Amino acid sequence: MRYARISVEGRAVWGRVGESDIELLSDSPIGDEPDVIGAVPRASAVWLPPVVPPVFYAVGMNYPRHIAHAGVETPTRPEVGYRANNALTGHRSPIIKPVEVEGRFEAEPELVAVIGRTLRHATYEEAREAVFGWTIGNDVSARTWQHSDRTFWRSKNSDTFKPMGPWIETDVEALAQKTTLRVNGETRARFATGDMVFDPFDYLAEMTRHLTVRPGDVLWMGAEATCQIEPGDTVDVEISGIGVLSNPVHLEGTQP
Amino acid sequence: MRYARISVEGRAVWGRVGESDIELLSDSPIGDEPDVIGAVPRASAVWLPPVVPPVFYAVGMNYPRHIAHAGVETPTRPEVGYRANNALTGHRSPIIKPVEVEGRFEAEPELVAVIGRTLRHATYEEAREAVFGWTIGNDVSARTWQHSDRTFWRSKNSDTFKPMGPWIETDVEALAQKTTLRVNGETRARFATGDMVFDPFDYLAEMTRHLTVRPGDVLWMGAEATCQIEPGDTVDVEISGIGVLSNPVHLEGTQP
Repeated sequence: MRYARISVEGRAVWGRVGESDIELLSDSPIGDEPDVIGAVPRASAVWLPPVVPPVFYAVGMNYPRHIAHAGVETPTRPEVGYRANNALTGHRSPIIKPVEVEGRFEAEPELVAVIGRTLRHATYEEAREAVFGWTIGNDVSARTWQHSDRTFWRSKNSDTFKPMGPWIETDVEALAQKTTLRVNGETRARFATGDMVFDPFDYLAEMTRHLTVRPGDVLWMGAEATCQIEPGDTVDVEISGIGVLSNPVHLEGTQP
Repeated sequence: MRYARISVEGRAVWGRVGESDIELLSDSPIGDEPDVIGAVPRASAVWLPPVVPPVFYAVGMNYPRHIAHAGVETPTRPEVGYRANNALTGHRSPIIKPVEVEGRFEAEPELVAVIGRTLRHATYEEAREAVFGWTIGNDVSARTWQHSDRTFWRSKNSDTFKPMGPWIETDVEALAQKTTLRVNGETRARFATGDMVFDPFDYLAEMTRHLTVRPGDVLWMGAEATCQIEPGDTVDVEISGIGVLSNPVHLEGTQP
């Protein structure tokens, strides 16, 4: 099943995504099965981030080739970090490049686990069973700020720097897929989604030794490769079996 | 006015805190004024964190004496960081010290700004007008983990490491107050709440150059001094004009 959040008359509404229509739901499908309260044509949907998480977890260096390229040590423990909800934006909404950004402005294609159950002191198997479904994230990053600032506050968490979507796919072997990064239709990177140092269940087992994850929390799993994006580009992140997250890039203050 | 969230029959309910009673409210007071739907005696209240923020912002080195003591450079720009909602706990609820924690386990007494309006590209004066009220935070920190880990995930964000409360005070000159840190009734630190390198409005003006803050977001302002806490202790953070946030410290797995 594919679940999304779309904007209907200015309100965020959950939906079940079909081939041509989106069935509107009375409530979040994470937990009880909600009622169907209507339908809209899929072609006209305004896509929102498929969930606004209570906690937004994100993994850093987690793909061997990315680690080798960055010249850093391979992590020996699954240590998680954070991103911020203000930066979330939906499928097809613009990534706004701030006018002050200099240097590399990059897309990072990431698998995202959406949590379905409250977990604490979870085993690997319990963590696996607690994932509600999978979506796609683009961890847009301004590298000069990433290197100059004490935190990732503006390098990774400026408004629109975290596209997520288009939907949550509940029926996919997420770690057996291929991730593809395209700019203006041209492939810039392609890698095995599951070729991770630590997989999502390793992370959840380690995290829940010390903290409680809850329904709706998200865990972004890092990227093997990145690429430069510029205003005027359209950047697509495809994960086979899930879908395509597509966003245009605009320069701040300009109306395309 | 003092606004809190309390647990009523297992549900989180907003309340307006009086001398002897808490008036229960139909909705959050951040925004429209809600209806009064009942009252409970204040003495029996089970206090929850007064807000669960969409984004949980926190400031690091922000008091000159703390910076001098730590031997780090004084920040030249207001750069904000993050904490995580799973770690929040209310007034009088226990801080759980994990059995694996070694070394210094410390309390950090902090002023917290609670945002009342959506802000982007705010001036200092607009930022001042957008603060709904003020509460108190204790940025509990496990120093060995803080130094050994790539992120603050478990050093500062383990469950119960972020007591906040007891309420949001809307009528106080927050920067003109005194912050006092007590353990078992004994004063361990006392400092001028407003003696900051950058004040909350400096932070909000800088942050909103690149991001949108929203109603319910919180901004923890850092501490001038910290102190060691141990299981069996009760740690109080008092900010004059706001109140006292008090929490016992328990060892994980023990029932006191």
